[in-house]
Amino acid sequence: MSLNLSDKALNEPAARLMARCDALAEISSDPTSLSRFYLTPEHRRVNDQVAEWMQAAGLKTWEDAAGNLWGRCVAADPAANRTLVLGSHLDTVPNAGRYDGMLGVLTALSAVEQLQAAGVRLPFHIDIVGFGDEEGSRFGTTLLGSRAVAGTWQDAWWELTDAEGVSLHSAFEQFGLDPAKIGNAARSSEALLGYLELHIEQGPVLEQRNEPMGVVTAIAGARRYQIELTGYAGHAGTVPMAMRQDALVGAAEWILAVERAAKEFDVVATVGQCQAQPGGVNVIPGAVQLSLDIRSGDDRRRDEALESIRGSMARIEQARHLSSQWREIHNAPAVACADWWQQLQCAVLSELNLQPLCLMSGAGHDAMAMAEIADCAMYFVRCKGGVSHHPDEAIQQADLIPAIATMTQTLIRLAQRFTD
Amino acid sequence: MSLNLSDKALNEPAARLMARCDALAEISSDPTSLSRFYLTPEHRRVNDQVAEWMQAAGLKTWEDAAGNLWGRCVAADPAANRTLVLGSHLDTVPNAGRYDGMLGVLTALSAVEQLQAAGVRLPFHIDIVGFGDEEGSRFGTTLLGSRAVAGTWQDAWWELTDAEGVSLHSAFEQFGLDPAKIGNAARSSEALLGYLELHIEQGPVLEQRNEPMGVVTAIAGARRYQIELTGYAGHAGTVPMAMRQDALVGAAEWILAVERAAKEFDVVATVGQCQAQPGGVNVIPGAVQLSLDIRSGDDRRRDEALESIRGSMARIEQARHLSSQWREIHNAPAVACADWWQQLQCAVLSELNLQPLCLMSGAGHDAMAMAEIADCAMYFVRCKGGVSHHPDEAIQQADLIPAIATMTQTLIRLAQRFTD
Repeated sequence: MSLNLSDKALNEPAARLMARCDALAEISSDPTSLSRFYLTPEHRRVNDQVAEWMQAAGLKTWEDAAGNLWGRCVAADPAANRTLVLGSHLDTVPNAGRYDGMLGVLTALSAVEQLQAAGVRLPFHIDIVGFGDEEGSRFGTTLLGSRAVAGTWQDAWWELTDAEGVSLHSAFEQFGLDPAKIGNAARSSEALLGYLELHIEQGPVLEQRNEPMGVVTAIAGARRYQIELTGYAGHAGTVPMAMRQDALVGAAEWILAVERAAKEFDVVATVGQCQAQPGGVNVIPGAVQLSLDIRSGDDRRRDEALESIRGSMARIEQARHLSSQWREIHNAPAVACADWWQQLQCAVLSELNLQPLCLMSGAGHDAMAMAEIADCAMYFVRCKGGVSHHPDEAIQQADLIPAIATMTQTLIRLAQRFTD
Repeated sequence: MSLNLSDKALNEPAARLMARCDALAEISSDPTSLSRFYLTPEHRRVNDQVAEWMQAAGLKTWEDAAGNLWGRCVAADPAANRTLVLGSHLDTVPNAGRYDGMLGVLTALSAVEQLQAAGVRLPFHIDIVGFGDEEGSRFGTTLLGSRAVAGTWQDAWWELTDAEGVSLHSAFEQFGLDPAKIGNAARSSEALLGYLELHIEQGPVLEQRNEPMGVVTAIAGARRYQIELTGYAGHAGTVPMAMRQDALVGAAEWILAVERAAKEFDVVATVGQCQAQPGGVNVIPGAVQLSLDIRSGDDRRRDEALESIRGSMARIEQARHLSSQWREIHNAPAVACADWWQQLQCAVLSELNLQPLCLMSGAGHDAMAMAEIADCAMYFVRCKGGVSHHPDEAIQQADLIPAIATMTQTLIRLAQRFTD
């Protein structure tokens, strides 16, 4: 079983894939930017458009009980009892780029189109999914679509409301869905061969290494904190330096300690929020609001770095007569991609004369939710400057040739592995 | 010429002075806090109340063309051609304390009351002034009262407006003043023996040193900047530490450099504003808004420290691939208190068995404006925790005994110097 995955043969599929990303970018609640949220009229329109393309490729399509769009490429034996799920999400952040999510759904479709065109039939079904919510833009909670599929939906979510006060429960009904049937969206773990998601990197590593594709080893576990560091405000002219309890100078020392610890423990750690209070030009800061986001593919290393960072804060507090309060606002463990998947992916990349570059995903993805019910895998595609969640998000059409080739060849090698 | 300046003799004057501060604190535009602004009905009421006390002490009172209140204690020879000005301001910041400004006007009155009670006449007139605006709370520009007296009023100020859009020009008319006559408020330099202002320290030094009073050597010159430090925003999970251009980590390094330079050059320097942009928990800061306030009694030393601070920024920009923009928003030279005044003040403190503790004023005062037309001097009085511009601003009644004694004795020693 082999296909023509040459640049020449994939030029036109790559152009069509690029054009489909452009077409979906027109489906937005905002005429001047791309904003497409869960259970809105734009969600309906994007599902309808993608379903039309799926049907044109011979896929049977349906929407599940959570509004996720599915398209099935039936196995050689229609009674086959195993299914591979490919996909990503079709919703966006506000003022989004056009590849984050959509590229994964549409590249999966391109790969299936390659198989269909060549008359290749596989020993398992392929279900391509376009999740309705990954970003959490409308209801504040992420991964609603994939968590419904993973069977990890929580009843408490029904009370979540959007900016207009519409509950998730009402939004379901307005979209034509029955909240009571949410359980029907869950897929059975036994029937799943695995879950494979292609996504733009959202980081600069592939660009830096000059590689179009990479294999994801794990999705980082993240912990997040809101921190208030308190000192004593004072007059900027009248309090001598030695008598100050300047919360901002203490925060500055700690921010550098965060950077040092991240490098020492080989994790990523970010202070994204820093606001001095009261914030007068002529007032010594009495308090600073800070945030900390710390991630790693290895939870133990991440927690060791965190311990070091908290130790630094304690020393700074003592030396500068400050005090801090920490509130954990997020704590998610790392999700490892399946070893067998990574081996297969690396073999496919080598076979296609691409470097089998492995990297961690610092961002969250639907694969995190899907890992509850299936062995997961991800490919990353290079994006310009690592920019995402921004209209400047960009990819090169030329990179879609290896992307389609890799996805297609992965399906073929998986089929061989399955039948061996 | 000597007076009974014992604790016993001054107990009652100190209590009366405290009670007067309390009484003025009731004159406010806000029923729940002390807020008293220039050319308002509360300005009228505070002038009327202080004028009543001045008149009771035998002073001739008037309001000048800028709404400043004056009370004259006539010299032994009513035709004397030299005048000493004592005083401070009667306006406040919003939600103010009750001593900042008022204490200087009322302690001057207490000292004159001591002289009057003892029948002491001086060889010069004493004019006690209560300036109508020092804080700039209403029109944003400070020292309006004392700058009118110094003859440094600027015509451009007429267009200044308050929060309700009322111009300074209209406010003059509403207060019953004629803007065309503002020049009449200016006092002639030749006729002035000097200007002496008593004020709460607004800093913690006297409290730390356990002294009720201090002599001010200079009012610090201040330079202030708004600074934007720019890097490159990115995803907190996907950009490796080594590839970041994190503006906040650069800002942190610089904030510590500011502290080091302040200590090295013996100035005070404060970063009061620090706000990371865009400010997402999971976004690497692409920019930081910062402020810098740097002060010293010695302009040259201040500017050397500033040069060091700018050099640190340049090095950080280069090392971290950041760039900064600086905008100077304030630049005022230091104002030295007259040497002869400081000598006389120190002698008086020693004579009264007080430490002649000399300190710089980091805050601005009416004396800065008055220095244009008179040799200036200031006494500081200890205040609780160095707190000012806050309802918690506090002094001890016991400290008003040395305050009144010092002011009174200073007048007596000045008279001796004058007649020597």
